[in-house]
Amino acid sequence: MAVIKQFGSSCKLVPEPSILDVFQDVERGRSKFGVVPVENSSEGSVNLALDLLITSDLKVSGEIYIKIIHSLISREEDIKDIDCIFSHPQAIAQCRGWIQRNLPAREIIETSSTAEAVKMAGQKKRCAAIGNEIAAHHYGINILVREIQDSPFNSTRFFVLGKEIPERTGRDKTSICFTTPHIPGSLYRALEPFALEGINLTRLESRPTRERPWEYHFFADMEGYITDERLKRAIEELRNRVEFIKVLGSYPMGEREDK
Amino acid sequence: MAVIKQFGSSCKLVPEPSILDVFQDVERGRSKFGVVPVENSSEGSVNLALDLLITSDLKVSGEIYIKIIHSLISREEDIKDIDCIFSHPQAIAQCRGWIQRNLPAREIIETSSTAEAVKMAGQKKRCAAIGNEIAAHHYGINILVREIQDSPFNSTRFFVLGKEIPERTGRDKTSICFTTPHIPGSLYRALEPFALEGINLTRLESRPTRERPWEYHFFADMEGYITDERLKRAIEELRNRVEFIKVLGSYPMGEREDK
Repeated sequence: MAVIKQFGSSCKLVPEPSILDVFQDVERGRSKFGVVPVENSSEGSVNLALDLLITSDLKVSGEIYIKIIHSLISREEDIKDIDCIFSHPQAIAQCRGWIQRNLPAREIIETSSTAEAVKMAGQKKRCAAIGNEIAAHHYGINILVREIQDSPFNSTRFFVLGKEIPERTGRDKTSICFTTPHIPGSLYRALEPFALEGINLTRLESRPTRERPWEYHFFADMEGYITDERLKRAIEELRNRVEFIKVLGSYPMGEREDK
Repeated sequence: MAVIKQFGSSCKLVPEPSILDVFQDVERGRSKFGVVPVENSSEGSVNLALDLLITSDLKVSGEIYIKIIHSLISREEDIKDIDCIFSHPQAIAQCRGWIQRNLPAREIIETSSTAEAVKMAGQKKRCAAIGNEIAAHHYGINILVREIQDSPFNSTRFFVLGKEIPERTGRDKTSICFTTPHIPGSLYRALEPFALEGINLTRLESRPTRERPWEYHFFADMEGYITDERLKRAIEELRNRVEFIKVLGSYPMGEREDK
């Protein structure tokens, strides 16, 4: 869904089994762009994607926000005929309230993905899957009830990975990663250049480094394009204040769907 | 293992199936203390524990570091007699190099916990589990090979939950949670009081708020006790600069095992 939102439905989709495979596909030139989830509005960061960004030469060249919509998908035409529900544990958790109100005491079978759940519900009578509309269309199965998730605020943010940074649009974001020295006030000093230049940090996230226990990389997203004067000055000053810094990319701001 | 390290082996252990159950057990007075994982040195935060700390009235009254040691546990006495390995997916991932070198091409069966794996390996011939020594002793099974994890730096940090904050020891830490207003430089301004007072932040972690999409709570750990003059001044000043602040607790610094 993220790929179609960003690139349109006529682009060639190459599904990969894992986030690592998406990185490798783009690195080896088999795909021009890759799309990986980086953050969910209720669950937080996708750790593997952040960790791979530190070592990969790929650039973040876009961001995509997708509102997560779960629907009840089944061969049956009446919700009363459903005895059993398939879905991924996270989707089941996100629809728990709806299930308790509308389909209490049904057997729940966990699957490895919501797509797998939809496929299985297509093969069996008296069953339903919790999944998305695209999977329902793909397997040619009915959507019985739309939007059954409990929270209206559930979105996932994706990064587009490419070999180059796209041109400035005037409404851009920049993502960086850095490591601070182990002295009091070092993170404060790292954020100072951005505050002095009036740059809005939209996110700051820490991840443990793999090399040394209990040390952290910080991931920061901010408004602005990498060649904007104020942003350039802030990043140049940051270089003097941190042990490691990497610019991950600059890209057009994605359109949020949850406002 | 964390409970035994902190409270000794004579304390009464009450196992609970989930982190939420541990919180509730202490809140309802069924247990005096609870122990929950909050952070792993390679995998990062335990999201559920952080989210529950925001709303719970419990205090963080201790921290415990445990080095993760995986061992090969089996009824067999020779590694050559092993056809099949049970373990939790995370433990399997953490021993992948060792398995490839020493037990290549064996069937690997994923279990819900390493304790469950050890139990199963105790019931079947020609099988081994990857798990910890306590489980091996509990089920009376041999440890065939000790410390088979690939990385020597793999530790988990636990919080002790209680109804009160313990007394000052002189080597303490304090944990807080706060939310910054949505203006440029607000996180920088939130960290300033700590930098000015020379307080060492040992960790800063962000978690999405459940109420509003793409807004974050920050979790900060720092050196010092909550009534120390400088720390008290810094937190008082922080109150003027943030939308929400909660002191989660003050507690004696835990002893790390990975140095």
